[in-house]
Amino acid sequence: MPELRRDPVLGRWVIVAHERAKRPSDFPVELQRKSPDFCPFCEGNESKTPNEIYAVRTRDSKPNTPGWKVRVVPNKFPALGIEGDLDKRGHGIYDRMNGIGAHEVIIESPSHNISLTELSETHIEDVYLTYLNRVKDLDRDHRMICPMIFKNVGFTAGATLEHTHSQIIATPVVPRTVLQEMEGARRFYDYRGRCLFCDIIAQEKDEGVRLVEENDSFVSFCPYASRFPFETWVLPRNHQARFDKESPALMRDLAGLMRRTLLRLERALNLPPYNYMIHTTPFDNQDVEYYHWHIEIIPRLTKVAGFEWGTGFYINPVPPEAAGTFLREVDI
Amino acid sequence: MPELRRDPVLGRWVIVAHERAKRPSDFPVELQRKSPDFCPFCEGNESKTPNEIYAVRTRDSKPNTPGWKVRVVPNKFPALGIEGDLDKRGHGIYDRMNGIGAHEVIIESPSHNISLTELSETHIEDVYLTYLNRVKDLDRDHRMICPMIFKNVGFTAGATLEHTHSQIIATPVVPRTVLQEMEGARRFYDYRGRCLFCDIIAQEKDEGVRLVEENDSFVSFCPYASRFPFETWVLPRNHQARFDKESPALMRDLAGLMRRTLLRLERALNLPPYNYMIHTTPFDNQDVEYYHWHIEIIPRLTKVAGFEWGTGFYINPVPPEAAGTFLREVDI
Repeated sequence: MPELRRDPVLGRWVIVAHERAKRPSDFPVELQRKSPDFCPFCEGNESKTPNEIYAVRTRDSKPNTPGWKVRVVPNKFPALGIEGDLDKRGHGIYDRMNGIGAHEVIIESPSHNISLTELSETHIEDVYLTYLNRVKDLDRDHRMICPMIFKNVGFTAGATLEHTHSQIIATPVVPRTVLQEMEGARRFYDYRGRCLFCDIIAQEKDEGVRLVEENDSFVSFCPYASRFPFETWVLPRNHQARFDKESPALMRDLAGLMRRTLLRLERALNLPPYNYMIHTTPFDNQDVEYYHWHIEIIPRLTKVAGFEWGTGFYINPVPPEAAGTFLREVDI
Repeated sequence: MPELRRDPVLGRWVIVAHERAKRPSDFPVELQRKSPDFCPFCEGNESKTPNEIYAVRTRDSKPNTPGWKVRVVPNKFPALGIEGDLDKRGHGIYDRMNGIGAHEVIIESPSHNISLTELSETHIEDVYLTYLNRVKDLDRDHRMICPMIFKNVGFTAGATLEHTHSQIIATPVVPRTVLQEMEGARRFYDYRGRCLFCDIIAQEKDEGVRLVEENDSFVSFCPYASRFPFETWVLPRNHQARFDKESPALMRDLAGLMRRTLLRLERALNLPPYNYMIHTTPFDNQDVEYYHWHIEIIPRLTKVAGFEWGTGFYINPVPPEAAGTFLREVDI
């Protein structure tokens, strides 16, 4: 019999349909790494991107030239513009404002034919230190309200360039999902006096069946009410509401845990398209007790269809206990 | 400069990025209508589906034999099971219940090689009368809380069988999106004393630029805060909260308006994959003043990527004014 499960953060219900259960090999896999004619993210092509904002480079190399490990540039086709003001206005019964914000690309490696998991842990640590530095810098611009760091891998997951990269968009309003997550977490805190996410970590470690990886600072698991097959969340073990308030020293453990978790997903699902998103509070929230930053990884294996769009109710053909077990047992 | 727009129902913000504006011909089109080896929905194959629940058939034909125009059967691989009880329970900090509900398929034509828009208006009227009858019947089962009627067209939109069909899922809880829509509409009503959707219709008719089609009973338009390129909504002009409280006589006008609206989308976008969903209130809501049933049509032209998943914030590369104009001007 299928099960309904409720996401304790958003109040979102999920149907876990055991009868529809699939094995990882049942999913089609997208062809990746076709050679493009030209890649603006490759070393040597620095002049083909907007000027760099930040880079991890060798001491004697100059900006916008080779010699970098990680490089941040403005998105050439930004979803939000960095210049101007918001100009909030009504339009009849509707509301509008200008699309002010930041949209940056973090190029994770100078090499084209390498994925995030093929980088050394030290190199991935540099990528996550770059995330941290960029978000801290965006916090200084008072127009920026909320940062979203995300990574799209594969055409199906929305990647338009295959060269390994992440993106940051800082929005001038608090996005709905962030607001709803915070409201959900606050309701739990008001009722129980504890952080919901800290409770989730405790139960996941206690049960173990949905766990994927853990180290001294982080844990990853398939959430109880996973919307998607093999959906996996990564949480810091110690309470912290904001990603950008974490110590830089913690990025080494994050790199280690993310590499191992993503490697398991890649091996289990034969290099699936996926997205990951860092969920953190808006900039004006100082160390709230009730929220806990985390990363959500969603392999893009199933189609989202009319029912999901109409209801926000997802149909997940792989119980997270089966997904967790499979991911733990795969060789990496 | 891109614009931010707020959906007045859900409070969801959308970036309308004029700089990314595309024309319909820029979108890739999926190959459709490959011949399958065998189709259980075709006339003559009635024994290959579960027994029919309802059908529009010639007077002398017997159930589960040829002679039908529209046929409803239980989904052979249902997302929710019709038998049993909910067994609501906690699981540590999580909540669960059994997946009780209904999942039916409405086969819209006995012929395989025909799409909804190629049917006569009288035939489409029979399809919508079937929706109406099935929802009224499901309302009699006290375990069913909320009906969702939807249609998936094309592989990218989640259709697994190409033979033209719709589906109904009745859930045992109120889905999050339905709840949030009702909350949003109620807030507007509490503040202004009017139905939000009635106000939207008035403004859309007044402005005209986003209008697609209208007749005596219905209007279709690209919503102000469209999440997706060429997203189109269909609303009854007279206030009515529940789809299943509409008069059967109105289904003729609905059929006419839907056929013309979908035909415009098909011509403009070269038979795009799409979903449509009927948004209506849960069964226990009697004639509420603040909600207004409607249909949302979403062509599936763009990929949903990390930013959208993380924030609920969509990036729409086609302003709805451009989409509305294009749809009005296409020849049908």
